[in-house]
Amino acid sequence: MKKKTEQKAERLKIIPLGGLEQIGMNITAFEYGDSIIVVDCGLSFPEDDMLGVDLVIPDITYLKENQDKLKGFFITHGHEDHIGAIPYVFKDLNVCPIYSTKLTNGLIEHKLEEHKMLTKVKRKVVKYGTHINAGEFRVEFIRTNHSIQDAAALAIYSPAGIVVHTGDFKVDYTPVYGDPIDLQRLGEIGKKGVLALMCDSTNAERPGFTASEKTVGKTIDSIFADNDSSRIIIATFASNVDRVQQIINSADKYGRKVCVEGRSMVNTIETASKLGYLQIPDNTLIDIESLKSYPDEKVVLVTTGSQGESMAALSRMANGTHKKVQIKPGDMIVFSSHPIPGNEKAVSNVINDLTMRGAEIVMQDVHVSGHACAEEIKLIYSLVRPQFAIPVHGEYKHLTAQARIAESLGWDHDHIKIIRSGDVLELGDNYAKVSGHVHTGAIMVDGIGVGDVGNIVLRDRQKLAEDGIIIVVLTLDSASGTVLAGPDIVSRGFVYVRDSEDLMESARAVLTETMEVLEEKNITDWNKIKADIRDNLSDFVWHETQRRPMIIPIIMEV
Amino acid sequence: MKKKTEQKAERLKIIPLGGLEQIGMNITAFEYGDSIIVVDCGLSFPEDDMLGVDLVIPDITYLKENQDKLKGFFITHGHEDHIGAIPYVFKDLNVCPIYSTKLTNGLIEHKLEEHKMLTKVKRKVVKYGTHINAGEFRVEFIRTNHSIQDAAALAIYSPAGIVVHTGDFKVDYTPVYGDPIDLQRLGEIGKKGVLALMCDSTNAERPGFTASEKTVGKTIDSIFADNDSSRIIIATFASNVDRVQQIINSADKYGRKVCVEGRSMVNTIETASKLGYLQIPDNTLIDIESLKSYPDEKVVLVTTGSQGESMAALSRMANGTHKKVQIKPGDMIVFSSHPIPGNEKAVSNVINDLTMRGAEIVMQDVHVSGHACAEEIKLIYSLVRPQFAIPVHGEYKHLTAQARIAESLGWDHDHIKIIRSGDVLELGDNYAKVSGHVHTGAIMVDGIGVGDVGNIVLRDRQKLAEDGIIIVVLTLDSASGTVLAGPDIVSRGFVYVRDSEDLMESARAVLTETMEVLEEKNITDWNKIKADIRDNLSDFVWHETQRRPMIIPIIMEV
Repeated sequence: MKKKTEQKAERLKIIPLGGLEQIGMNITAFEYGDSIIVVDCGLSFPEDDMLGVDLVIPDITYLKENQDKLKGFFITHGHEDHIGAIPYVFKDLNVCPIYSTKLTNGLIEHKLEEHKMLTKVKRKVVKYGTHINAGEFRVEFIRTNHSIQDAAALAIYSPAGIVVHTGDFKVDYTPVYGDPIDLQRLGEIGKKGVLALMCDSTNAERPGFTASEKTVGKTIDSIFADNDSSRIIIATFASNVDRVQQIINSADKYGRKVCVEGRSMVNTIETASKLGYLQIPDNTLIDIESLKSYPDEKVVLVTTGSQGESMAALSRMANGTHKKVQIKPGDMIVFSSHPIPGNEKAVSNVINDLTMRGAEIVMQDVHVSGHACAEEIKLIYSLVRPQFAIPVHGEYKHLTAQARIAESLGWDHDHIKIIRSGDVLELGDNYAKVSGHVHTGAIMVDGIGVGDVGNIVLRDRQKLAEDGIIIVVLTLDSASGTVLAGPDIVSRGFVYVRDSEDLMESARAVLTETMEVLEEKNITDWNKIKADIRDNLSDFVWHETQRRPMIIPIIMEV
Repeated sequence: MKKKTEQKAERLKIIPLGGLEQIGMNITAFEYGDSIIVVDCGLSFPEDDMLGVDLVIPDITYLKENQDKLKGFFITHGHEDHIGAIPYVFKDLNVCPIYSTKLTNGLIEHKLEEHKMLTKVKRKVVKYGTHINAGEFRVEFIRTNHSIQDAAALAIYSPAGIVVHTGDFKVDYTPVYGDPIDLQRLGEIGKKGVLALMCDSTNAERPGFTASEKTVGKTIDSIFADNDSSRIIIATFASNVDRVQQIINSADKYGRKVCVEGRSMVNTIETASKLGYLQIPDNTLIDIESLKSYPDEKVVLVTTGSQGESMAALSRMANGTHKKVQIKPGDMIVFSSHPIPGNEKAVSNVINDLTMRGAEIVMQDVHVSGHACAEEIKLIYSLVRPQFAIPVHGEYKHLTAQARIAESLGWDHDHIKIIRSGDVLELGDNYAKVSGHVHTGAIMVDGIGVGDVGNIVLRDRQKLAEDGIIIVVLTLDSASGTVLAGPDIVSRGFVYVRDSEDLMESARAVLTETMEVLEEKNITDWNKIKADIRDNLSDFVWHETQRRPMIIPIIMEV
């Protein structure tokens, strides 16, 4: 009896290990007693100042230190910011299963295959409505809608109460594939009493409702209807299978072949159609090699690059470096996407390049968001009616926008918890408090190096990028300390040397003089020599150019 | 008689030397016979891939080669993309006068002063309606509206016909300072018969009319009325004097002192108020030192940084590095601006930082554009009714958007000329043809170096930024060619060396082996040695890390 009371008194801990100080890298631990489950395991893309970095993954020190408690990973949907870190994270973890819906699992398997880790990681496909027992937890997958199919909200049952986590979601009453979000079940669980709601904030600043994916299909159809003599090229997100389905439907209706270009899109389409999430009529798909065999009005090209990514197919078509597709006057190019913040300029550059080649650009009404706007968020709050609101998914301004929505619905300020990565939020009946903090962080991946690029390396890259480098080498006599060769100067990224011979000549004179002064003073301490070289050359260069290149003195001894 | 016919047959040449392949850097030459005049002389800001570059100016080789023909520069308004290159360009030109309106001239003088060139450049202040004779040309300044006062369109009279150049403009029937755009005069000149119209395209993609600057004043006023207990901080463009005037008006009305922060804004306000373009009631301005002496509800801070520029005042307040201003809960921060394309992410980051400090952000209805939308462009076409339309100011997609507007108004496709920088467009009665091309280009300015950063330097900076650098040094015996010291390895921006000692150790082994093989083969050719070092080390590094740092072998000889 006493033991049971003790157990009941224990609180649920929610510990976001990423995702709350940046867009992406979603990963949250739920801990109760000796059990930990994890929701999502995403990566994020590098910020502008992370030069040369390919992607960023969460630091999971806390999970490694608590491996014995780990009962499973539960993945809400198959986007990179929710599954992308799995191959990296599972290198450091003992086996524990990953639970997800069918398409999500298919995309995870593809990723594990690429990293040759398919045999190392246990995976379980889960149906909506199924409950998974995981230590002290039970987790139910609930159908939602999103810009990828098979998205799920999670009802996380713990002895301390139920937490509903929406994942990324929207309310689509007329989805292209499958059924609308299971609002009934959310209401039913809400009626039981929910301790906390963790709800998607991405579009919380936007009023109203996000339109149905089907509205995009109508616009696409009318583009096909109105342009029966042009080649049509549609750029969209590689993972938006419903979008591709609607393009295929219109292509089929208007007698066009569909050609898919861009590695990530080809991959997604393969996985989705293999698993039955994409219906492609026979003889509809053609490969890029045979594109030339069809007249313009008989093809539609579906491509990656809607975000202006420099290496994506559309960008290469725009700048004329695509080997198979040349843009020509009359091409109708549809941007079925909105620029993700930070990509606006890149997208604009691609549009200018395409326009210069004579293409016509369409951007109106050919995209809808995958995230809930303010009225949808209100709907979810009204169904779930949690004791506590914990806005998730979004930048800080988005989280506070959802907090304002919750307040407008009557939630008390104290019952809305905006937390940060690493916070340990303890939850119990009418209790919610950040009780501690665990180590978290962002680990940068560059090439196959994970974590070997840190702040020092980044700072060097920034300095190198800004003003370049000057290398000074000299060889000293080990016995006497006199200069045997040099000082020689090599520079990169500083000035165009052939036009700046005088400058480099004067720089060499500064260094020769520096060495003479040091020799006169009988100074042979390498640190002092290097410091004087750096200081004198730096002053000279600043005076002459007002730049601060990195200066690296290298001394050799024979 | 014959001579006159010949003269009449001569054609007007319009030669844009910048401004048509990028936003900014506006400069256009007009040539007839032995006369050249130039409209505007702007700079542009570096593209993302121009690492370390401060600003970009036009290559004016064509003007230098034709100095004797130069009759004057005519400046439409005082924005950087129209005046910013003047100090650089006039270093290379013999004296010819710069004509502009009073405020524009004030801003040019400030700029010349900074570059210590005030005595070197002749300037003339021009009133609206005045005609300036300049060789074969006559130029009339016509009042327009823009986001800076004293903006002008130019009517350029040449023996071949009249060209109307709008400069940057909007139609504001209720401007804050001065009168609305002189539509009557544009109609009158149009009635005489205009050969070509060069019209601002920046907002050509947007339907409707740009709202009056006065509408912003109303919103600002209601922000003051509704927030009588908060400190108000308003970020806007440093050059928008009318915006500042409206803030000062509201501050005066609601009994707040005005503090201005940010060097560029302080400069503009000084120039504008000295010349009478800004009315500041006595005892309204306070300096940043005395800000603390006033209660929150008695001050408004006007600041730069509305574009998220990392060094601007607002960004420093947001990240907590501003020495005089700490953001605190309750602060009301107004972004009286739209992000310029490319700055969206930076602005968003600043907003997140400010929100985390508890500030409230206002962005709705507190900014209007300074550029004409589609309906205003139609109005100008209908007044001027030129034979030829030459869309200017804007990216390629904006120029084509204006071309579509012109077509929709009935202009024939052949009478709409989209030209590029360097094109020589020859114009005569019912004649317009690109007849040649002159050398143009963008010259990068880095520190005080003008043009010493070229594509090679930029490519190096990009490579350095991406993966860093590895320097390999060795000292050879000049007689025998044997290695006396090294090979030593120094790297920057590649990996964090302390965590990668094994990698660097193995790299050294690769180099030692490389040198042994070379010695065995008696190879002493430095080029061959360097090539082998570079190739072997590059292969090794790629295999181990999948990165491609720049590799610089340096050989010394004693």
